Formats: sequence, structure tokens, C-alpha cells
Amino acid sequence: MTEGKLYVVGLGPGAYEDMTLRADRALEECDTIVGYSVYVDLIRDRYPGKEYATTPMTREADRCRMALEAARAGKTVALVCSGDSGIYGMAALVYALRGEDTLPEITVIPGLTAACSGGALLGAPLTHDFCVISLSDRLTPWETIEARLTAAAAADFSVVLYNPASRGRPEHLRRACEILLRTLPRERLCGIARSIGRPGESREFCTLGELGTREADMFCTVFIGNSATRLVGGNMLTPRGYRED
Amino acid sequence: MTEGKLYVVGLGPGAYEDMTLRADRALEECDTIVGYSVYVDLIRDRYPGKEYATTPMTREADRCRMALEAARAGKTVALVCSGDSGIYGMAALVYALRGEDTLPEITVIPGLTAACSGGALLGAPLTHDFCVISLSDRLTPWETIEARLTAAAAADFSVVLYNPASRGRPEHLRRACEILLRTLPRERLCGIARSIGRPGESREFCTLGELGTREADMFCTVFIGNSATRLVGGNMLTPRGYRED
Repeated sequence: MTEGKLYVVGLGPGAYEDMTLRADRALEECDTIVGYSVYVDLIRDRYPGKEYATTPMTREADRCRMALEAARAGKTVALVCSGDSGIYGMAALVYALRGEDTLPEITVIPGLTAACSGGALLGAPLTHDFCVISLSDRLTPWETIEARLTAAAAADFSVVLYNPASRGRPEHLRRACEILLRTLPRERLCGIARSIGRPGESREFCTLGELGTREADMFCTVFIGNSATRLVGGNMLTPRGYRED
Repeated sequence: MTEGKLYVVGLGPGAYEDMTLRADRALEECDTIVGYSVYVDLIRDRYPGKEYATTPMTREADRCRMALEAARAGKTVALVCSGDSGIYGMAALVYALRGEDTLPEITVIPGLTAACSGGALLGAPLTHDFCVISLSDRLTPWETIEARLTAAAAADFSVVLYNPASRGRPEHLRRACEILLRTLPRERLCGIARSIGRPGESREFCTLGELGTREADMFCTVFIGNSATRLVGGNMLTPRGYRED
């Protein structure tokens, strides 16, 4: 039997053109594509003749097990993640489920995370040090999230919020803003990147004082500037440092 | 005269396959490629028949002005950055130098930043919240860098260090470790990704207590795990959250 292998593929934000050449080749090469149904639907037409296996949103461990099983059965498998395969992606879970075995062979193929793709949509908000924080408390106590928001604000990081709100948790963004406003001024510049690389892609700028009242869902990424971030020519820019040459 | 335009292109870590399809197309389409000579040399053979304009390492503003001038003269220009074009890249400087003008048209094409590509090389160290901090004090006071390291450690972020050392500043990584060790235990897991996607690519794992004695240069990216980060099957993994399902 041929030895199977498993690619953990970051698809990037959504548009085909934002995938890497390596990701595209892995999807061409593989027999089986495993993923969350919404992301698999984004690529299904482009890679015909594949076996597809999908699961609903929160079944990450099931998806990883399905992918490992198919690879053990000799298939070349692509387990797809939106954005990067590592950053909040499934690569760690796949490795953890394989444990100390060396087979099946696993290759992590990175993809554009929303810090990169959403930043490009808004301008260039991450030219200096930044924190990435998920507001999902499904696997993380809210106290940990709160401590990280507070630390990020105190040390003048730019901040990128992933999962700023989701079905059933619409108030997370507003709560995060209240925490940040204990340290940061209301006029701090913020940007929202929506549906990056997909139909309905849009961007919006506002102040931190306004941010908590804005519509946000799981297809949004929120950027909070540092003390030097400004709108210039309609784009959100953070300079490279405090002493520009 | 045709209107020129300017693409600010993130090349990713170095290998052609790690570029996005959009970046590859912009480089095919453009007349002129502008960049730091080392990065331009990585792609020169692949895009023949282009005009090339290069400058030495620290002349970012000169490169941006050259690119804007060529676009104003009607050329389609690709200004190339290693990694992402936004994250510590030149997109903000290009926008700032264009100011409130709307021409030439600027399109930022994101690329894989070392947090993504180095993370994939090491395993999956960034599955949870993280900070990205540059140790270069060329444009940032060291006190700011120190405050950010301290805040990141206190709030249990994973940390990615860009520019951990450079010619003339070999001691920055050791100083950063001393600061982190005021808060974090010596056995905290760390990883070093070297020359990602280029000849000599390698990875190394060590503890935070050992990290300050390790060789690091400007082609290294350093990852410091959070309290849950572990080596599993030879890979550096951070779980998605504190309560795994």
C-alpha cells in the first residue's frame, strides 16, 4: 500500500489568488479534502475529482481524526483551514492527535492570516509591534482574554482581534472595548475588515469610543491602532517606529 | 501617457512556492521591480525582462520614493518586501510618502509573515494569542521594547521575536531573555526558525534559560511558547485553548 500523507493547508482569507502556490499544488495533488463545510465550499469547484469530507463548525477534533484516518489508509489528504493553518488553525491539534508517531507524514502549509490580509485591506496598521487576541471564550476563560487586552493596551501594542463576535456572543466586542478604554483614549483609531477576499468585502474606520457600537460577526477582523496610528489618504497607517528616517 | 500603478508586494519567506498567486501575477505584470538588493536577487531569474532598481538595506524611504516616481512616470511597479508587505514592511511608508494624493494607485499585496512561515517550520506554536515584537532599536527606544516584552510575559502570550539580532547588535536576544526571565520560568519552551524557505533552512528548540546563548542573526525568527506550549513528536505545539474538547 502507498504511504499516505497529510497536508494541513492554510487557504488564506478566501480568494483563490490569496493562496500560496504551495497550497494550490497540495490541493491539486491530494486525493481527499477535509474541512469545515463553509471553507470547503469556497474551493470545491476549483479542484474537481476529489473526495470531500466536511464537518460542521465546532467539530475540529473530528475533522483532524478523519484526515489522519484517511492518510493512514494511504490517501494524500489536504486538511484545509481558513487563514493560516497554524495561527488559531488545526495544525497543533493534528500533531497532538498523531502524538509521538512519525506516520502519517504531516506537512503544515502556511497561509495568509487575517492580520496580513485584513491589514492590507485597511492600509498598513501593523508596521510595528502588535498582539493578536481572539475574543472567543469557547476554550479560554474570559479573565485570560481580559488580562491580555489590558496588557496590550498598557504596552502600546497595536491589537488585532480575531473572532470579535459570533452567534450567541454579540457582546464580546463591546466588552473588549470597555476594557481597552480603561487605558486607551476614546479617539484611538480602529479599523474593521469584513469578509476579506470574499463577496461583500468591506472596510470601516472608527474611533475606539465608537467601536463597541459597530456591527461585528465571525467574518470580521478588528484592528486597534497604537498611539502613533493615523488615517492618511483614507488608509490606516502605523509608522515603523518612533523615530522615522 | 498611461497611468502608472504601484504594487507593494510581500514575497513571503523566500521560496517561490510560498508566494501567493496574486504576488506572482503582480510580478509577472509589472515593468519595474524595486527592492532591497538581497530580496530582489531571490526573484530576479524568475521574472526576466524587467527593469530592476535596488538599494542597500536601510534605505527604505529611498526605495519607496523610487517606486512612487516610477509609477508617476507611467510604469507598473512592484515594490517588494520580504515576508508581508505590511507587517514591519514598506506599505505604510509608501502610503505616507504619497500623502493625501490618490495617485499613483497603490495596491498592497500581503505575503506570509515569519509568524506564519516560521511557525509552520517549528510545528504550530501560535494556535493561541500571541505578540509580535521586533528587537531592532534602530527606530524604537529600547525602553519601549522592554515594556512590551514584560507585558507579553505577564499576560501569558506566546511571543514571536523579529530581528532578534543583527550586525552590530548581537546582544539583543540575550537582553530580551533576561527581561522575560524576570517573569517566565527558565524551562519555558522556545524555538528558532532559521533562513525559512531558503538554503540553510533549519530549526532548533531550547529552553528560555538556554535561548540567550544561542546563535541568532537577522535571518532568524524566535518563538517563545506560552505556559501550555509543549514539544510533541518533535514539534512545538501550543494548544488552542485552556479547555480542549
